[in-house]
Amino acid sequence: MALVEMPTGTGGDVTVRDIIERHPRLIGLDGDVLLRCIDECFDCSATCTSCADACLGESDVPDLVRCVRLNLDCADVCDATGRVVTRQTEPDVGVVRAAVEACVVACRACAEECDRHAAHHDHCRVCAEVCRRCEKTCSELLASMG
Amino acid sequence: MALVEMPTGTGGDVTVRDIIERHPRLIGLDGDVLLRCIDECFDCSATCTSCADACLGESDVPDLVRCVRLNLDCADVCDATGRVVTRQTEPDVGVVRAAVEACVVACRACAEECDRHAAHHDHCRVCAEVCRRCEKTCSELLASMG
Amino acid sequence: MALVEMPTGTGGDVTVRDIIERHPRLIGLDGDVLLRCIDECFDCSATCTSCADACLGESDVPDLVRCVRLNLDCADVCDATGRVVTRQTEPDVGVVRAAVEACVVACRACAEECDRHAAHHDHCRVCAEVCRRCEKTCSELLASMG
Amino acid sequence: MALVEMPTGTGGDVTVRDIIERHPRLIGLDGDVLLRCIDECFDCSATCTSCADACLGESDVPDLVRCVRLNLDCADVCDATGRVVTRQTEPDVGVVRAAVEACVVACRACAEECDRHAAHHDHCRVCAEVCRRCEKTCSELLASMG
Repeated sequence: MALVEMPTGTGGDVTVRDIIERHPRLIGLDGDVLLRCIDECFDCSATCTSCADACLGESDVPDLVRCVRLNLDCADVCDATGRVVTRQTEPDVGVVRAAVEACVVACRACAEECDRHAAHHDHCRVCAEVCRRCEKTCSELLASMG
Repeated sequence: MALVEMPTGTGGDVTVRDIIERHPRLIGLDGDVLLRCIDECFDCSATCTSCADACLGESDVPDLVRCVRLNLDCADVCDATGRVVTRQTEPDVGVVRAAVEACVVACRACAEECDRHAAHHDHCRVCAEVCRRCEKTCSELLASMG
Repeated sequence: MALVEMPTGTGGDVTVRDIIERHPRLIGLDGDVLLRCIDECFDCSATCTSCADACLGESDVPDLVRCVRLNLDCADVCDATGRVVTRQTEPDVGVVRAAVEACVVACRACAEECDRHAAHHDHCRVCAEVCRRCEKTCSELLASMG
Repeated sequence: MALVEMPTGTGGDVTVRDIIERHPRLIGLDGDVLLRCIDECFDCSATCTSCADACLGESDVPDLVRCVRLNLDCADVCDATGRVVTRQTEPDVGVVRAAVEACVVACRACAEECDRHAAHHDHCRVCAEVCRRCEKTCSELLASMG
């Protein structure tokens, strides 16, 4: 654990929470799981974008081709899913569910591939952790949707 | 069917086809269905972005709130799916399938909502058609994946 | 020129045009340039996504690292710009201009890099052409904005 | 300012930092400004997506049409810019600069519009703050690029 000083209301996580707490209509979902899912999807999208780029900069990039590819897929699917779960107005439960299910699959595949390179590339180790965290939170959101 | 004259190598559809025909590695999928699926996903993403914006410009926008929301979701899911199916290098079949399945669901929900406004707003009628075409092509790709 | 058979009303280009022609509010821009700019931005985004992926599948991927990177940047900038120029409701001219200017720069950089690999990789040759076409149309839109 | 306790390696902001600190190649940019710019772009993209959706859910949505539109533009431009500035491998300085400049313009326009609704809609007040923070950090990054 680290002690960090943060201005109130700053930081990626905090802001979307601030907006959603002020939202005129709220989905009937578990608020805590929903907010964590939004955070994790956008965090995972950014992390996979960064890991793809770090892999591309490694001298053994030919061994990392599958990793780059799954990072790119995961970044795109997490970004779309993050946007869908962020929206609270007039949701279609089937669409939310299908997007979150795709996110679970993309995160799992990316985590498995990143794990294969975790011993040699620390960015892959970090990315695998973030993907598994996102996969877990998405699964919790699906479970809470019944 | 109409006979149209097209300059070689011009036009949205043709270009991705040109790249994929020159791709060093090709997924073992039905090429024709794959190429149509890529076209339809990107076309549907652009169309839903445009329909959301047209709805926003209508004087009865309060009646179109659900339509805007599903257009935005469909645009994001189709864009991510279009990117995933475009990639031919080292695909994970499970990720491709999950993305395409989410696309089917998003397109169907958006088409149903657009249909409700088709009599009053011609852009919704066009958008519903495009969504159904994308839904159909995605379903064909899923079927071809076995 | 090639004779191709196309079902009426299909194809990426046609649909966004159909929506925009039915749009309740239209930007005071040259309609033909605007529609071509929308087409080119989305086409270039898809093409750059595909070229990045094709480069990643080549055996000389270490020589194509800069090409993949600029393809990814160009795909993202073209996609965002395509969405901004598609929207006709309540535009901010400064935002439209800044997005299209960024697109010109991204397309030019990507075309120059793809050109370096055009002799060895036909997908880079095609992608360079598409980027230059998008750069040109974006420049025309900027000129038409005065 | 508030003192918050954060587990190491968790939370949206921290993870991209973790990856970039482990990146094999680093842009010669001010690291602190760069990392804040990445954070702010992705945070602003998510916040604008959420504010557009909250506006859409308000009973006075006809008065918020311009706000929704600029939120959607800002979300798309910030997302693309966030991806471009995240990438450290083989950057083109002109592309990075043009994307960040577009982000400054999109954030400023969105902040000004959100400010007009801040007294009635607290989500617009929060979103205006986030846009101004992103605009400021992007301007700092441009200044540090010389």
